[in-house]
Amino acid sequence: MVNYQEQLSRTFAALVDPTRRAILAKLEREDDGASVSELAAPFAIKLPAVRKHRDVLEDARLITRTKVGRTVTVRLAPEPMREAMDWLNRYERFWSQSLDRLAAYAERQEADAKRRKR
Amino acid sequence: MVNYQEQLSRTFAALVDPTRRAILAKLEREDDGASVSELAAPFAIKLPAVRKHRDVLEDARLITRTKVGRTVTVRLAPEPMREAMDWLNRYERFWSQSLDRLAAYAERQEADAKRRKR
Repeated sequence: MVNYQEQLSRTFAALVDPTRRAILAKLEREDDGASVSELAAPFAIKLPAVRKHRDVLEDARLITRTKVGRTVTVRLAPEPMREAMDWLNRYERFWSQSLDRLAAYAERQEADAKRRKR
Repeated sequence: MVNYQEQLSRTFAALVDPTRRAILAKLEREDDGASVSELAAPFAIKLPAVRKHRDVLEDARLITRTKVGRTVTVRLAPEPMREAMDWLNRYERFWSQSLDRLAAYAERQEADAKRRKR
């Protein structure tokens, strides 16, 4: 059983690598999942490297793997990514406030500049 | 100059540690920023450890540091967190679809079970 904080750490750790992010982005467009060779196709990296990334993503529970005969299909597992997103969501209030404050500051500066020119 | 993908990697790497996430969550509630000792207060860790986390967060550009006299104040820097959030946002369509599909599947299973019972 992985607790909430531990899963968040695993999710963010898996997202550090740009190739893994690209693999997840590709899987997002593949409703029926993809094989490892399909995953590897857009990248200039070899199959064993893609398999390693797949294993990291699977350990982090961001993808699931099904095997039918000799074909392994991987699919996105939505829940952990949603938790990571929810965590970041808590900051949204802060961002909008900060950006509003920045805009207000820029406007004040502009108004001051105009006043000084008169 | 750090490019978009590199910044995303740094942001996610900084978010891997639960104490760093807790520091960011604390800073989100401090509109005027906080000193390192204020940051350390809720945690059972020593100041040097908090300073290390602060340095990682600063290197990842998730916080800024201002020094007035001998007092160092740190504040959240909203932009990189927003970029990370936007990246995760791309999956939202997928999550809602997956969860809808899961619900539809569960309903079908239930309907089948009822039909078999008749």
